[in-house]
Amino acid sequence: MRNIALTLSYDGTNYHGWQFQPELPTVQGALSDAITAICGEPRRLTGCGRTDAGVHALTYCANFETDATIPADRLPYALNSRLPRDISVSAAADVPPDFNAILSCNRKEYVYKLYSGDVHDPFRHSYAYFYPRALDLDAIRRAAAHFVGTHDFAAVRSVGTVTRTSVRTVFHFDITQDADTTTFAVCADGFLYNMARALVGTLLYVSEGKIDADAIPALLESRNRTLAGPTMPPCGLYLNRVWY
Amino acid sequence: MRNIALTLSYDGTNYHGWQFQPELPTVQGALSDAITAICGEPRRLTGCGRTDAGVHALTYCANFETDATIPADRLPYALNSRLPRDISVSAAADVPPDFNAILSCNRKEYVYKLYSGDVHDPFRHSYAYFYPRALDLDAIRRAAAHFVGTHDFAAVRSVGTVTRTSVRTVFHFDITQDADTTTFAVCADGFLYNMARALVGTLLYVSEGKIDADAIPALLESRNRTLAGPTMPPCGLYLNRVWY
Repeated sequence: MRNIALTLSYDGTNYHGWQFQPELPTVQGALSDAITAICGEPRRLTGCGRTDAGVHALTYCANFETDATIPADRLPYALNSRLPRDISVSAAADVPPDFNAILSCNRKEYVYKLYSGDVHDPFRHSYAYFYPRALDLDAIRRAAAHFVGTHDFAAVRSVGTVTRTSVRTVFHFDITQDADTTTFAVCADGFLYNMARALVGTLLYVSEGKIDADAIPALLESRNRTLAGPTMPPCGLYLNRVWY
Repeated sequence: MRNIALTLSYDGTNYHGWQFQPELPTVQGALSDAITAICGEPRRLTGCGRTDAGVHALTYCANFETDATIPADRLPYALNSRLPRDISVSAAADVPPDFNAILSCNRKEYVYKLYSGDVHDPFRHSYAYFYPRALDLDAIRRAAAHFVGTHDFAAVRSVGTVTRTSVRTVFHFDITQDADTTTFAVCADGFLYNMARALVGTLLYVSEGKIDADAIPALLESRNRTLAGPTMPPCGLYLNRVWY
């Protein structure tokens, strides 16, 4: 039995997230259909994480087991010929039997994109969040630095999934600007449900003066979701990179 | 009664074209709803042309008559607050009573975008056509030059709408490349049904050696749609500019 890892990217606009759901379009469902057409039904198809409805992936990793004999380097072309145009496989490789896209992943980076301007851009409605207010970048960066390190992130997760612990380690949290676009890049060993979007919402509250940048440690300490900023809409969020 | 001209842009992906159709999402329908909310129901709402389902507009002009007293310079913000995120009004102005967005328009430019690469880009599925073959730009440009001027374009229109004449004047037809993207820009005093997309399809047939570049004059002469290239998919087509 081969274990094959795929690198893919997708526009999440038209999907109810990664994870398979009966009767609903999902990335896992679409990918599974394409694999079935080329390799026969895959034994297990594991993704590196659940992305929510409308969230995108610039780099996503998935693995599946199969007895098919097609060479790995021919899989991207073959799978792309069966995939909808908003999902694209860029690489495939045979990996050791114990490789698991989610369990073997030790670090992920999400980016969130905002853009400013006089009017919203109709071509970015699904790809960035229109935020036409001035940003206090100094305050945002000071607050973001407080999130870096190992903390209990219960204050910035949504209720929904049960996890063993809400302690995570954030490795970096960088904010950059390019023309009208501001990009928030946050890298951690794992993300709680809606954590990336709540972190960005909290930084915008800091920019708006609703939360003090140096109140972040106390906010984390409180573990109280109602003290943090809002969960941002999914359109601006991308899984950008995964590490193994 | 005021006559107000609007400049707008839209992502046509989720619309059945500009023109109002009962029960279907259209740009005219969405714009009419927003105008009604701000100004009351508009007396006539005229667009500068019918774009097909999935076709975009970087610059589109529409006009409507109203008795509303809201200053024109406040209309973009007010309308945008009521419009879906894939339509955006950038300007509004009071214009003379005889201004008519379609009848007063004397020139339009469409652009069509192709991109190349090893695999398709999931973020461009609705915004450019994936064409991973080499392009013979010399042949394409030689063929395009034959379309410039005043000709009968019956060979490159789809049956559908009745027009007085199929003679049109093409002012320029330029092909440019930037990184992985090739842009076809064609400007004319008017376009027959599907003409822009059939012109690009014909140029790709030239690139593929299926039509000789210098056979274009005879092709136009024939008025035979079956001799020209295919009508390209709508995703790559944008109304780029309109002249008054």
